Amino acid sequence: MTGAESLVRSLVAGGVEVCFANPGTTEMSLVAALDAVPGMRSVLGLFEGVCTGAADGYARMQRRPAMTLLHLGPGFANGIANLHNARRAHSPVVNVVGDMATWHRAADAPLASDIASLARPVSVRVETAEDEGSLAACGVQALAASQALPGGVATVIAPADRQWETCSALPRAAAPQPEDLDDAALARAATFVCEGASALLLLGGRALGERGLRAAARIAAATGCRVRRENFSARVEVGRGLPAFERVPYFPEQAIDALAGVTRLVCAGAREPVSFFGYPGQPSRLAPRGCEVLEWSARNDLEAGLEALAEHVGAADGVDVEAREAPVPPTGSGPLDVGALGVALAALQPEGAIVVDEAATSGLGYAMTSAAATPHTELGLTGGAIGQGLPCATGAAIVCPDRPVIAFQADGSGMYTLQALWTQAREGLDITTIVCANRRYRILEVELGRAGIAEPGPAARALTHLGDPELDWVALASGMGVPGTRVDCADALVTALRRAFAEPGPSLIEVVLP
Amino acid sequence: MTGAESLVRSLVAGGVEVCFANPGTTEMSLVAALDAVPGMRSVLGLFEGVCTGAADGYARMQRRPAMTLLHLGPGFANGIANLHNARRAHSPVVNVVGDMATWHRAADAPLASDIASLARPVSVRVETAEDEGSLAACGVQALAASQALPGGVATVIAPADRQWETCSALPRAAAPQPEDLDDAALARAATFVCEGASALLLLGGRALGERGLRAAARIAAATGCRVRRENFSARVEVGRGLPAFERVPYFPEQAIDALAGVTRLVCAGAREPVSFFGYPGQPSRLAPRGCEVLEWSARNDLEAGLEALAEHVGAADGVDVEAREAPVPPTGSGPLDVGALGVALAALQPEGAIVVDEAATSGLGYAMTSAAATPHTELGLTGGAIGQGLPCATGAAIVCPDRPVIAFQADGSGMYTLQALWTQAREGLDITTIVCANRRYRILEVELGRAGIAEPGPAARALTHLGDPELDWVALASGMGVPGTRVDCADALVTALRRAFAEPGPSLIEVVLP
Repeated sequence: MTGAESLVRSLVAGGVEVCFANPGTTEMSLVAALDAVPGMRSVLGLFEGVCTGAADGYARMQRRPAMTLLHLGPGFANGIANLHNARRAHSPVVNVVGDMATWHRAADAPLASDIASLARPVSVRVETAEDEGSLAACGVQALAASQALPGGVATVIAPADRQWETCSALPRAAAPQPEDLDDAALARAATFVCEGASALLLLGGRALGERGLRAAARIAAATGCRVRRENFSARVEVGRGLPAFERVPYFPEQAIDALAGVTRLVCAGAREPVSFFGYPGQPSRLAPRGCEVLEWSARNDLEAGLEALAEHVGAADGVDVEAREAPVPPTGSGPLDVGALGVALAALQPEGAIVVDEAATSGLGYAMTSAAATPHTELGLTGGAIGQGLPCATGAAIVCPDRPVIAFQADGSGMYTLQALWTQAREGLDITTIVCANRRYRILEVELGRAGIAEPGPAARALTHLGDPELDWVALASGMGVPGTRVDCADALVTALRRAFAEPGPSLIEVVLP
Repeated sequence: MTGAESLVRSLVAGGVEVCFANPGTTEMSLVAALDAVPGMRSVLGLFEGVCTGAADGYARMQRRPAMTLLHLGPGFANGIANLHNARRAHSPVVNVVGDMATWHRAADAPLASDIASLARPVSVRVETAEDEGSLAACGVQALAASQALPGGVATVIAPADRQWETCSALPRAAAPQPEDLDDAALARAATFVCEGASALLLLGGRALGERGLRAAARIAAATGCRVRRENFSARVEVGRGLPAFERVPYFPEQAIDALAGVTRLVCAGAREPVSFFGYPGQPSRLAPRGCEVLEWSARNDLEAGLEALAEHVGAADGVDVEAREAPVPPTGSGPLDVGALGVALAALQPEGAIVVDEAATSGLGYAMTSAAATPHTELGLTGGAIGQGLPCATGAAIVCPDRPVIAFQADGSGMYTLQALWTQAREGLDITTIVCANRRYRILEVELGRAGIAEPGPAARALTHLGDPELDWVALASGMGVPGTRVDCADALVTALRRAFAEPGPSLIEVVLP
């Protein structure tokens, strides 16, 4: 058995089932091991950001890590942006990065670089398999580190000789289990929420499953406390019949307004709200000055904790969720806007869909409507590193082949990792990509305005507009084997959505927006 | 004046003329400064790897740095692979990376990360503008560091408040000048090359200009020493009438054969040859054991050094370059191969072309023929980080609008940064992209064979083949505003090349190869 085989065997034994890969010469032994060892599915991405984003999407739906297989420092670097999102989503991911043979390092060959320095900013653990026979042990330690709650990215650097050497090690690691919330944290949270309307229960992370949402609604009904959810969530259940809580707004002014009057804050899976960016004259922290904050440990079983809190405050067993009328698809042949787009999607999306939301400003309409859609799962842009949507949808579809996946995608962000469409075609994944083609980085136009630049000059226009030439997403998708269509009115959008949702396999709809 | 304006003004004063950018919220003041300060051209890339690869190509042709403008850690990370190539090419590049406002760091906002850790592996200098008013000083120090010979990547981390604060600093830095080769190094090199056929003069880096090549040919004629050039060169002059030297072969076995019998090695701009990767049973260093090595300092004026060496050994003033017949374009309607492709390109490329070579295994035919083409400049894949070709061609075309640029591109590598085509269309650049569509990572098939895997299993096949579905490069190019055509025989290839070279602006030819 080679070191590479011992690693793959150990990961398979630890529950890893999929490898999102773009290997090179220094990973050839691992490629051979993927054939020699049964139980690991190999999925090729034509760019590493596809692999890491897919591993993130996979982990959000599976709650277990996939493996990535990446080529040296530059290959790893190409995957960093989506690993940043995975880090902020607390997605368990095990990266295996090939490196020069240990004895070849001193040569400083052209592709050599400091992989550990690249890996540290996104990884909870980085380890190089230095010692003979150590590769599999590094792998299981990375696997355990990735699964230690709340979950994270762990990186193994695998020198080529550690892969090809003969090896007998087959170490095993147990997956960490969540801890129950301790009584003190529970009792303190109870005193907080019992303050009623001056208390806020802020939900995030793994609190946003159906059990967590229902428990939070019971707590609110019993105590009168407010409930919100974090702005960008790794995964949240949304739709008719499910309690819906407003997000903390994106811009600090609005968030400060939304949090006004809060004197007690319980963060369950969320962090205390901070501004996404620093703006002149605005604070970093958004809760009112003097507000007491209780953060539940991310190692806790948050949904069980919320249920225990509901019991503690004497909440009724069930909760009445307000009835919401299903949205009605828009009609007409005039230009579309983000409102009509959002209503159309919320009205037509199939039950049980996974909606990967990287629509940015074009998603505002959907955000206001999606609570009235059929029950579904939304995956958000946790780390703000754009180019997440298409890869994340790819990984989610790999793990959930029986659920329709919708990539709700801004055009500017989509261009970052458009190569994901090819993997969707190769793997025959049931993903409908909706590209919101407003042909600009709209958020930057907004930010220029916030920075006091009312009339952008030619450089600012050149750097925020995607027109000249306009991207043709139907051609781009076709070039990667995904059928597409372009729509510019409600009637055409509704027809295209119905067809895409009715047919299996990947497809793309370019929605022309003003 | 804002800090951002002081930075841009200082860089413009230091000779920086182009900014390859993909900014975000934390760079809005710099975007405004690009409008407020005259003299800097802004070029948008739809992915940061396009920006950094273009800066590399720009620097190779201009010998001065461009600026990149990148968004936080994830945006920088997307540019690392091509910065790795720039680092190995010794291309001067000045990265400006926005960061959170200094007072907002403690909030650890979603997009915050350790940018310096990401930047160090590719940068000769990394500095954060910590102190009030320090942004421009950091910029000019980065500019100087990038230009210190042999040239490198320097990175300035620019917190948002350093950009928007009021500032009066306008520091200036002088560009470093090359040093003359000292007499001892010259005399020692002379004793080496005078050993004749057991001496090798190895050319690389800035020795590969026309002056350097002619001086090396004179030295060889006078002494009988061997001359070779490094395998992957940042920039080399090639073609009829120019001395042509064989490269050091890629695989170690072949390189060891090629270097057999060498007891004295003078490295002028090149490093002592090492294997690109470590292979079992093969050494790192490729020169014979006991070979004496003299490396000229990369801070030297290498072409002047070679001319001085030629004088020192009493070489004749001129040198007869062997006559080479212009290649004849192939004809026929049968399937193409890499040999016919190479001859066709060498036969038809316009005089003075800049050929960016990321054709990988599909470029072997051209490599054997290009010395017989009209005089041109070749830019190679110095760092081995794929996805360099299309961005590098973009940057070269920005700085050399009067020279035709040819991106000679493998399909697998091309997919990494295909977004460059859009920038080519927007800027109207005269670039002919030739995609070698063999629909596989051929080099990995070769490497699997070298690793003893004669019959790749399904995983190895899945991870090395790009078919299923086949990429349609004509559609991909069209989606970004670049006209394209697909050819699968010599007649069609010749017609397509003639038309592409005759017409201005970008175009793409997908060459179907077995």
